[in-house]
Amino acid sequence: MVVRARRRHTNVMNTRTPLISVALFCISSLALSETPAEMHTPVYDKDQLVLPANYREWVFLSAGFDMSYSPVASPGHHMFDNVFAEPLAYKSFLQAGTWPDKTLLVLEQRGARGKGSINQHGNYQDGAVMGLEVHVKDVARFEGGWAFFQFDGKTTGKLVPHTEDCYSCHASHAAVDTTFVQFYPTLLPLAKSKGTLSKSYQP
Amino acid sequence: MVVRARRRHTNVMNTRTPLISVALFCISSLALSETPAEMHTPVYDKDQLVLPANYREWVFLSAGFDMSYSPVASPGHHMFDNVFAEPLAYKSFLQAGTWPDKTLLVLEQRGARGKGSINQHGNYQDGAVMGLEVHVKDVARFEGGWAFFQFDGKTTGKLVPHTEDCYSCHASHAAVDTTFVQFYPTLLPLAKSKGTLSKSYQP
Repeated sequence: MVVRARRRHTNVMNTRTPLISVALFCISSLALSETPAEMHTPVYDKDQLVLPANYREWVFLSAGFDMSYSPVASPGHHMFDNVFAEPLAYKSFLQAGTWPDKTLLVLEQRGARGKGSINQHGNYQDGAVMGLEVHVKDVARFEGGWAFFQFDGKTTGKLVPHTEDCYSCHASHAAVDTTFVQFYPTLLPLAKSKGTLSKSYQP
Repeated sequence: MVVRARRRHTNVMNTRTPLISVALFCISSLALSETPAEMHTPVYDKDQLVLPANYREWVFLSAGFDMSYSPVASPGHHMFDNVFAEPLAYKSFLQAGTWPDKTLLVLEQRGARGKGSINQHGNYQDGAVMGLEVHVKDVARFEGGWAFFQFDGKTTGKLVPHTEDCYSCHASHAAVDTTFVQFYPTLLPLAKSKGTLSKSYQP
C-alpha cells in the first residue's frame, strides 16, 4: 500500500508557469540533468528494468515506519521502507539540489519484528523483503521523464503504467522533481538552499 | 536509551573454550582481521575519535524504530536509529562473516515525525540528529578489541568507559564479534552461513 501511495509522477511544471520561467527551467534542467560518467544507469530487458544487484550498497536516503498517505491506516502488520540512491546520482544531487538524468532510486520494503533477541520494545527490520520498487529518471524514454518499476521477487521489474495515480500524486506532492525529498532528511535542506523545491510542494 | 542499551562489548571467547579451539580461533581471527587497503580507519584526536564526515554515504545496515532492550518502554517520543558500516569493512564482512580490524560502525538516531506533507500514518525521519555513536574495532588499542564513542553534536567523540555495561551486554547478546548483527537483516544470514555467530548468541 505504501509503495503505490508513495510512487507517483508527472512533469513538475504546470500551465500557469510564465514563459520566461519555462525557458529558464529548460536551460537549468539541461545543465542539471547531465548524467555523471560511471554512474550506474538503467539497464532494460525489452520493456522491463533490470534490478540493480548491489542497491543495498548505494546511498541510504531514509527509512520510514508504517507510512501511509491514505486517511485509512494500514492493516495489522508493521512495515519498514528503506530508500537508496545510486551513489553518483546522489553526489549530483548534493551539487545541484535535484536529480540527473538516468537516476535510479530504490524503495525496499521489509517486514518489522518486535520482540526478538534482546529487543523488548519497538521494531527492527526483518530478513524478508516484502516489496521492491525502482523510480527511474530517463527523460528520453518516459512520459514526464520518470517511471516506476515493480519487482515481484524477480530480477526484472514491470513498468507501472503512467495512467496509475501514483504518477499524478508524485507530481502534486513531491518536494523535488516528483521525488519525495520531503522524507529524506539530509536532502531536503539542500533542495531548500539551492531553490529546487517544486512550486506545488506543501511542507 | 537505545544507544546505551545497544552498544556493549568484550571478548567473545570464554574460559570454557578448549585450547585447540582457542588456537584455531586465533589463527582465523588474524586472517579475518586484516584491514583492507584504503579502508577509512579510525582517526583519533588524543583520546577522542574524529567523526567520519561522510558516514551517511557508507553502507546502510538497517534502521530500527523505538527499539529498547529494557523491559520498560521508552518515554513519549518516537525515534529512529540508522546504522552505517564503513564500505570496505562491509565488503570484508561479506567475505568473512565478521569485521576486520579498524572497522567503524556509526549509529545515528533521528527524531520521528508522524503527519506531515502527505503522510497520514506511521512515521518518517526528521532532520534533527538526536544522537550519534561510533563503534570502533581497534584490537591494539582497546580492551576486548572494540570501543564506543559518543558524539554530543561535536566532530570528536568521547570514549565510553569499558566499565559501562553496554560492553558486557554486547558481549553477552551480540550475534557476531560483539556487534548486533541480529538486527542487520542482510548480514545475519551471511554470518550463519559462514559459521561466525558468537557462541553466546541467542536468536
